Amino acid sequence: MLDHFGNFERTHYCGELRKENIGEDVCLTGWVDSTRDHGGVVFIDLRDRTGKVQIVFSPEIDEELTERAKKIKDEYVLAVKGKVRKRPEGTENPKISTGEVEVYVEKLKILNRSRPLPFPVEDEIKVGEDTRLKYRFLDLRRKKMQENIIFRHRLYQTVRKVFNEEGFIEIETPFLTKSTPEGARDFLVPSRIYPGKFYALPQSPQLFKQILMISGFDKYFQIVKCFRDEDLRADRQPEFTQIDFEMSFVREKDVMKFAEKLIKTVYKELLDIEIETPLSVMSYDEAMERFGTDRPDTRFGLELKNITDIAKSCNFKVFRMVAENGGIVKALNFKGGASLSRKEIDDLTKFVGIYGAKGLAWIKVQPDGLQSPIVKFFSEGEMNEILKRLEAEPGDILFFVADSYEVTNHALSNLRLKLGKIANLIDESKINLLWITDFPMFEWNEEENRWEALHHPFTSPKEEDIEKLETNPGSVKARAYDMVLNGVEIGGGSIRIHRPDIQEKVFKVIGLSKEEATDRFGFLLEALNYGAPPHGGMAFGLDRLCALMRNEESIRDVIAFPKTQRGQCLLTGAPDSVRPQQLAELKISVEAEEEE
Amino acid sequence: MLDHFGNFERTHYCGELRKENIGEDVCLTGWVDSTRDHGGVVFIDLRDRTGKVQIVFSPEIDEELTERAKKIKDEYVLAVKGKVRKRPEGTENPKISTGEVEVYVEKLKILNRSRPLPFPVEDEIKVGEDTRLKYRFLDLRRKKMQENIIFRHRLYQTVRKVFNEEGFIEIETPFLTKSTPEGARDFLVPSRIYPGKFYALPQSPQLFKQILMISGFDKYFQIVKCFRDEDLRADRQPEFTQIDFEMSFVREKDVMKFAEKLIKTVYKELLDIEIETPLSVMSYDEAMERFGTDRPDTRFGLELKNITDIAKSCNFKVFRMVAENGGIVKALNFKGGASLSRKEIDDLTKFVGIYGAKGLAWIKVQPDGLQSPIVKFFSEGEMNEILKRLEAEPGDILFFVADSYEVTNHALSNLRLKLGKIANLIDESKINLLWITDFPMFEWNEEENRWEALHHPFTSPKEEDIEKLETNPGSVKARAYDMVLNGVEIGGGSIRIHRPDIQEKVFKVIGLSKEEATDRFGFLLEALNYGAPPHGGMAFGLDRLCALMRNEESIRDVIAFPKTQRGQCLLTGAPDSVRPQQLAELKISVEAEEEE
Repeated sequence: MLDHFGNFERTHYCGELRKENIGEDVCLTGWVDSTRDHGGVVFIDLRDRTGKVQIVFSPEIDEELTERAKKIKDEYVLAVKGKVRKRPEGTENPKISTGEVEVYVEKLKILNRSRPLPFPVEDEIKVGEDTRLKYRFLDLRRKKMQENIIFRHRLYQTVRKVFNEEGFIEIETPFLTKSTPEGARDFLVPSRIYPGKFYALPQSPQLFKQILMISGFDKYFQIVKCFRDEDLRADRQPEFTQIDFEMSFVREKDVMKFAEKLIKTVYKELLDIEIETPLSVMSYDEAMERFGTDRPDTRFGLELKNITDIAKSCNFKVFRMVAENGGIVKALNFKGGASLSRKEIDDLTKFVGIYGAKGLAWIKVQPDGLQSPIVKFFSEGEMNEILKRLEAEPGDILFFVADSYEVTNHALSNLRLKLGKIANLIDESKINLLWITDFPMFEWNEEENRWEALHHPFTSPKEEDIEKLETNPGSVKARAYDMVLNGVEIGGGSIRIHRPDIQEKVFKVIGLSKEEATDRFGFLLEALNYGAPPHGGMAFGLDRLCALMRNEESIRDVIAFPKTQRGQCLLTGAPDSVRPQQLAELKISVEAEEEE
Repeated sequence: MLDHFGNFERTHYCGELRKENIGEDVCLTGWVDSTRDHGGVVFIDLRDRTGKVQIVFSPEIDEELTERAKKIKDEYVLAVKGKVRKRPEGTENPKISTGEVEVYVEKLKILNRSRPLPFPVEDEIKVGEDTRLKYRFLDLRRKKMQENIIFRHRLYQTVRKVFNEEGFIEIETPFLTKSTPEGARDFLVPSRIYPGKFYALPQSPQLFKQILMISGFDKYFQIVKCFRDEDLRADRQPEFTQIDFEMSFVREKDVMKFAEKLIKTVYKELLDIEIETPLSVMSYDEAMERFGTDRPDTRFGLELKNITDIAKSCNFKVFRMVAENGGIVKALNFKGGASLSRKEIDDLTKFVGIYGAKGLAWIKVQPDGLQSPIVKFFSEGEMNEILKRLEAEPGDILFFVADSYEVTNHALSNLRLKLGKIANLIDESKINLLWITDFPMFEWNEEENRWEALHHPFTSPKEEDIEKLETNPGSVKARAYDMVLNGVEIGGGSIRIHRPDIQEKVFKVIGLSKEEATDRFGFLLEALNYGAPPHGGMAFGLDRLCALMRNEESIRDVIAFPKTQRGQCLLTGAPDSVRPQQLAELKISVEAEEEE
């Protein structure tokens, strides 16, 4: 039989006791972190969310109690009363904050027991993530996880403080909303009252926050769950948290200035790190040219150089064909890489293959000349220009990819990151933040043979490009901005369209007929017709930001109850079968056999 | 063509200008609230979320500008630059905060136009709620709605401040979770990756917050959306917001004390109203006896009196039969109601019929004696005892209901509220808060012929009643507590079960087999086996609390984008049909025709 909790009143958290408390009578509650029996005296580390303290059961205090204590096992839940004593000299534990004291127990309540653990509650554990997720209640007891979740709590509070300082209004937007497929797949929720109809879970509160601006709330924010039924990539979750905000009567600079304040404040207050603002700004075109990606990691060089002009006239048919047919040829100089073996170069060739590149040409710059299968195809003048452009020196190796704009940049940007890691070029202590701006408004969807919005179709085109919406959509730039931290996009947003005529034009460019546009976004078009102010906003990915701030590889380590990459909750077993009656009420049926 | 917003920089909000600003050059943005042309001078009230200010277009300043201003209509969006002037004597408007000044406009940008409005943006409007919900973007521009939503924003911030002061950790729990039908119906979300399986949207984070206590977070809170697919009653929403919290190593008094601090603080800080704490506490049995309900409105008397003992021995067969067969007979004294007409009494009889009462007996206490069809069935002694118990005086009318415990209490508690309103007994300025405790653990479900949990099956029974779980479940009291405000339950909670053996017993009482219990709640049972601390918590309904604090009849008026009673969002049209491809990907099909 377990003890009743009764009227024990906790006086301190375990991690709070200090030598100032010596002599005090205290009452503690917590979990047994470890127990040791030294010559009949039982020492237990009692743990709660604040830390650990040593409690002592001694036969000199109470023989019977000490006998009971001998039966206590790890993760039992205790309440104890006792006196704080100074630890005997030489037995202090400087590793823990309470290491100078211990509590001699006079009264004990065993509030709950624990079965033997599937893994120990300690920082370095070797079990796989699936086991951790199944026993999340134990995994979350680990110090690192406690600190992550408590850090995340502090992040919420600091973020909200900044919004409040700037006069933003927190407003909840609906979770049961309308499916407007454009971008990712919606999660659907069948309606019971309207059989055959569905709600959708929001991919973001985008349209609602725009409606709120049209309603005159001026500044809106929300820390909010969003949902995307995607094929889950490396570190995505089907439900994720956004720091979402929107402002009226603003331009890009106003939103960006606030976003900088937000990030600067959380880094300062939570990590005591100074972020220099204003952040530097790089255009999309420049980022693509220099780094091959719109989220460049600018902590190191190894930049890409464009040699398409040289390729066009050279005798190397592979390069020339690409250059003549609208593709591009780019290269990077891996300093000191001339010593790479044939095998290592082959591996890198395979690596760029993942990103679609059909080959990886190379030139080693040796002290006694160039070594490469392709040098012979270039004139001396061409080769000198290439070497000059790439600032080649003896000991370097140059890598080339010739392919479409997308493939070349995709392959080389990833090769750059890989080489950066191999050569240890990345200073992990650095925090490089910058803005990417001047994105194209549209990108061509080969599969569907139509333009689609690069951000979303509510993004405003640049004023000066509006007339090109009909004539040359591919050249239209958007009033969008992404914030990039060490090569990771942590947030993005835009000035939105506030004029109904322009919104209709953009829908037309992406191939929505008037009927389709009305069917899906009629309420927005309607709202724009009743006095919509100029407005814009942004959203940060809170999970990602939190993981970066905590130096966690995976966002799952900063989410209390994350799902696996296949969307399962291993703790509860969701998703799961439901009762036939539940489906009958919704008037839906399942077509396929259940997958086990 | 509309003007570009360009580089206009707002210097003030409209509602901020005071006579201290006279002479300043200002730049304002906002909506046209009204326009007036007085002899060629155009006066416009410009509005933003802070209020209104009068702006003036005068030919003396700029003739062309004034001509343009004449074409401006209500709800156009403007940016203006101009100088603040004192209003001429006699033209001040004391009704608005900026009423002493006006702005003479020198530069104007018409940022957007508005179509003629379906209803005016003003406080008192006569359109139906459906029109308001369809044009929610206009409805939300109304001062009252702006104030409601901004009040709600302040409520969030104050609530969180209290949680932070007390060391609670804000933790997000999942929205895509496992269906555990017990209580209300779940909203389901089909899984695409696991065809035939479903997530459920949470009815509350109950199990996750218990898991967090088992993980050692000690104090958790969250302001969180919850979902119930109920047949929507008067003022419910399918998605609603809870202030949710949980604490470890606590008893009832600890949770109640914190809850009182929370409510006291929000009333003080947001409404400057003092709530006296500790609140009074009434047992469930007492509340049912005196008021016939577990959420009594204690702002007025008109209490119910039990006369079952008298009924048992009297000659009035209707009463005696009920009393002899386990029913009860209760009465109330409607002071001064002897003047009610036959028709009025008939209407009240119909009224109690709504709640299942088959009749409403009455006795008028006239100056010259009793007037009633039933007096003759009682002895003088019985009648004197009845009159004494009901403190009857000449001019009163006594009403009696004889029926089952449930029906009698249900009918008379509603009759009490109705009479209270009729006789204007309720002091609307009063805020009466109290706790209801000592609820029964189970209630008998006639339809399913089994016990079910009155609160939920994770509620702890009272220690002293644990042994009765198997022998007499109906007599077991729960460690639950509800907070009632003026007859509305605004929050409720309990000390939870932390011992696996007791949890298993409770599942057994409510008819869950070991397999069913494991299938649905296995993860909780598992977690309880690894060192669960004593814990308890509570949740407040934020929508309801906010509506009460704002004196709004409907929670829809404190929700930015509410749904109708049939669960529709009239703004977006959710729920709606989806593309066949979306259903195909989920491998589900719709059985019924779509309902229009």
